[in-house]
Amino acid sequence: MDTAVYAGTFDPVTYGHLDIARRASEVCQRLIVATTNTVTKQPLFSLDERTTLLYEALKELPGVEVASFSGLLVDFCRSVGAKTIVRGLRAVSDFEYEFEIAMMNRSLAPDIETIFLVANPEYMFVSSSLIKAVASSGGDVSQFVPPEALDAIIRRLAPRL
Amino acid sequence: MDTAVYAGTFDPVTYGHLDIARRASEVCQRLIVATTNTVTKQPLFSLDERTTLLYEALKELPGVEVASFSGLLVDFCRSVGAKTIVRGLRAVSDFEYEFEIAMMNRSLAPDIETIFLVANPEYMFVSSSLIKAVASSGGDVSQFVPPEALDAIIRRLAPRL
Amino acid sequence: MDTAVYAGTFDPVTYGHLDIARRASEVCQRLIVATTNTVTKQPLFSLDERTTLLYEALKELPGVEVASFSGLLVDFCRSVGAKTIVRGLRAVSDFEYEFEIAMMNRSLAPDIETIFLVANPEYMFVSSSLIKAVASSGGDVSQFVPPEALDAIIRRLAPRL
Amino acid sequence: MDTAVYAGTFDPVTYGHLDIARRASEVCQRLIVATTNTVTKQPLFSLDERTTLLYEALKELPGVEVASFSGLLVDFCRSVGAKTIVRGLRAVSDFEYEFEIAMMNRSLAPDIETIFLVANPEYMFVSSSLIKAVASSGGDVSQFVPPEALDAIIRRLAPRL
Amino acid sequence: MDTAVYAGTFDPVTYGHLDIARRASEVCQRLIVATTNTVTKQPLFSLDERTTLLYEALKELPGVEVASFSGLLVDFCRSVGAKTIVRGLRAVSDFEYEFEIAMMNRSLAPDIETIFLVANPEYMFVSSSLIKAVASSGGDVSQFVPPEALDAIIRRLAPRL
Amino acid sequence: MDTAVYAGTFDPVTYGHLDIARRASEVCQRLIVATTNTVTKQPLFSLDERTTLLYEALKELPGVEVASFSGLLVDFCRSVGAKTIVRGLRAVSDFEYEFEIAMMNRSLAPDIETIFLVANPEYMFVSSSLIKAVASSGGDVSQFVPPEALDAIIRRLAPRL
Repeated sequence: MDTAVYAGTFDPVTYGHLDIARRASEVCQRLIVATTNTVTKQPLFSLDERTTLLYEALKELPGVEVASFSGLLVDFCRSVGAKTIVRGLRAVSDFEYEFEIAMMNRSLAPDIETIFLVANPEYMFVSSSLIKAVASSGGDVSQFVPPEALDAIIRRLAPRL
Repeated sequence: MDTAVYAGTFDPVTYGHLDIARRASEVCQRLIVATTNTVTKQPLFSLDERTTLLYEALKELPGVEVASFSGLLVDFCRSVGAKTIVRGLRAVSDFEYEFEIAMMNRSLAPDIETIFLVANPEYMFVSSSLIKAVASSGGDVSQFVPPEALDAIIRRLAPRL
Repeated sequence: MDTAVYAGTFDPVTYGHLDIARRASEVCQRLIVATTNTVTKQPLFSLDERTTLLYEALKELPGVEVASFSGLLVDFCRSVGAKTIVRGLRAVSDFEYEFEIAMMNRSLAPDIETIFLVANPEYMFVSSSLIKAVASSGGDVSQFVPPEALDAIIRRLAPRL
Repeated sequence: MDTAVYAGTFDPVTYGHLDIARRASEVCQRLIVATTNTVTKQPLFSLDERTTLLYEALKELPGVEVASFSGLLVDFCRSVGAKTIVRGLRAVSDFEYEFEIAMMNRSLAPDIETIFLVANPEYMFVSSSLIKAVASSGGDVSQFVPPEALDAIIRRLAPRL
Repeated sequence: MDTAVYAGTFDPVTYGHLDIARRASEVCQRLIVATTNTVTKQPLFSLDERTTLLYEALKELPGVEVASFSGLLVDFCRSVGAKTIVRGLRAVSDFEYEFEIAMMNRSLAPDIETIFLVANPEYMFVSSSLIKAVASSGGDVSQFVPPEALDAIIRRLAPRL
Repeated sequence: MDTAVYAGTFDPVTYGHLDIARRASEVCQRLIVATTNTVTKQPLFSLDERTTLLYEALKELPGVEVASFSGLLVDFCRSVGAKTIVRGLRAVSDFEYEFEIAMMNRSLAPDIETIFLVANPEYMFVSSSLIKAVASSGGDVSQFVPPEALDAIIRRLAPRL
């Protein structure tokens, strides 16, 4: 694999995301971790904020670039010369959703392949939304997100606490 | 089976829905494909628009009628003399939700039976919501929805693109 | 639906099977409940014994016939003029297996449709194998199987107890 | 188990919840059934209303107290001296979500254990949201919720019907 | 909970089993970890060997006893005065099987409740059968089983290597 | 990815396997498709026969080699200089099993990564065991396996038909 794209909302980036990014960076020569907006979810952080947090978390991982995009993932892949989409799998319900997305992307771009990596078990229950829910109730989430993301969560949620 | 009802939001109708409707029409004498509103989802198209798109897509299938209703599905079934509810199954998560609905309908109307049909594998990843998400990002969804629904999606989403 | 086939190993027939058979008999005009041998499982009862137990349990259900067959289910369906296969769904793992079988049967015989019915919740945990395991440990399974099947289980398993 | 907490939104309490509460009260000496607010769902009833309905439904069950709380569940557990969290399991999708929550709570409070109980099959398809959807379409839900909750649903939803 | 039973084949005991036993011992006053034979699986170790390995692994856990039994689990529970069955959950497929067993046990003994505990994520992929498969191919499984079980596996499988 | 290994029983190779092998060959420079024996399943074809059928089916795919091995997959990977294991995912139950295997392999060899590819929907219901079951009942499986495998199945199963 020459170039691969690992895309997500990353609202914000977690150690689970970093685990997948690190694994993916070892099976491809160039990995672009790219954040985007989704129609269904209103993010806590703006696209710029999420991209910056991603950059801070990944800047020392060799062969990894950070980007943001709008529009279709397969169009973004083509614009950066990537033939592979990387996705992280956590659980069974993930798998079904991921399968739908992978099949749709294959229909839209048969030349781009999706590969799935599995996060370490210790990160299987770590999702950005659960972390935000815990943090908004005053829980300590420092073991699930990198320091910059932790600071950003605390600053953003503090007025609500 | 004399009369059966295949109900859904159909926002809009997809080739996956048509596949189920065609299969159902072969195992019953009269099939009513009926669109309705749901509490949880704000549809992209109005009930009238969805009914019209359904009618256009199904008008040449013999033994199939199109309708819309409000209220409980089991009440609608009784009003049209149907003893059978048809549902399409795509995936495991579908199944759990469908099971809940089927059991609830059985509690409300023990004389009405729910039967499940399975869509063709090529339609397993085709959901109205994924299609709308792809179309809203500028993706080509012509292979997933009939021509009239495609036109309607493009006209509705164009101002947002 | 004119004629439908509800096939299985029925080793032996349970109240869960009878629940599905009764429901199926209400949505089709003629239902053939047919027992067969499987490659993978060594049954406790012979094909003849299972067919007899099935017959005893179903003989008063109008519109229902009992049969046994060897070979492919779709070939049996054709031989009796059935265009519909009935399957009972209990759980998620059932669903996946059933989906595989349904797709395979559709490939072998595109003109024959599979419909799924859902057993009552009270029968969701009732499988022939669990019943046999319980009975072989001396447990009372009279609430799960009809009287003739209960007698047969007790007679068959008694020497092992 | 000395003291356990069974927490939820209970919007409103159902017979499924009561089944779990009764079972839990038999395996622990003191059970606190506690309602709370969630970030993601806008409840039909206020926290006070839900607590009152819970109290009415549980007041005759020995060893059971009713409470409400805000903030983290594990903090509430500590404040009442509970070392055990009770959760009800209905289906596979429940399980995955519950697993995430249990692991997160274990990270936040390693000394508090989560135990799962399984509702009776007859309550497996009974969720507060499905009940509200049925009631809002005019369906009779008296077999799923206790009388006070039924009254409350009817009064609340009547203006919309 | 006064007395609870945690039963299984334990062929042999793994650190995953020990994790569940330790957690269960903290929510009940007396825990009996009991090994048994199953109809379907031919164990690698005899009932005596499995009981001995279990005893070695658990002898220092306060409030925990080791036993073996034949026949129905609910009968064993009654014979030792236990009102609670403890089961460990690892994955979704576990859950379905466990649900069946729990419902069957509830039918056989309505006064005995089953509670489920979730193993730590690091043990989620640790099953006795996978460990035996790996060991039989010469893999090092010392991180998954206690020392005595490791020795027993090596001695038993050595002649096959 | 320089070198990857796609391992399985391949008893015999199906078009589903070939779909995964072709996809994998496009995301890595060298792909070794390797057949092995499993402890639990008694194969229909010998290791040599399965390897030969695999070779016939794959000989024209550039960058793909065929091999067989015994012992641990991770040891085979090391012996051929592969840092990546390729697995095909079909369904939810696959996923759980695959997850267990992937975590175990990661424990045994942290430097080797497992990636998952998803087969085309048309192959989702195609498993070697289902194909053998259908063929042994006289069904036509020519659309699921390559010609050499079809011949081998017919020759092997003919005496039983």
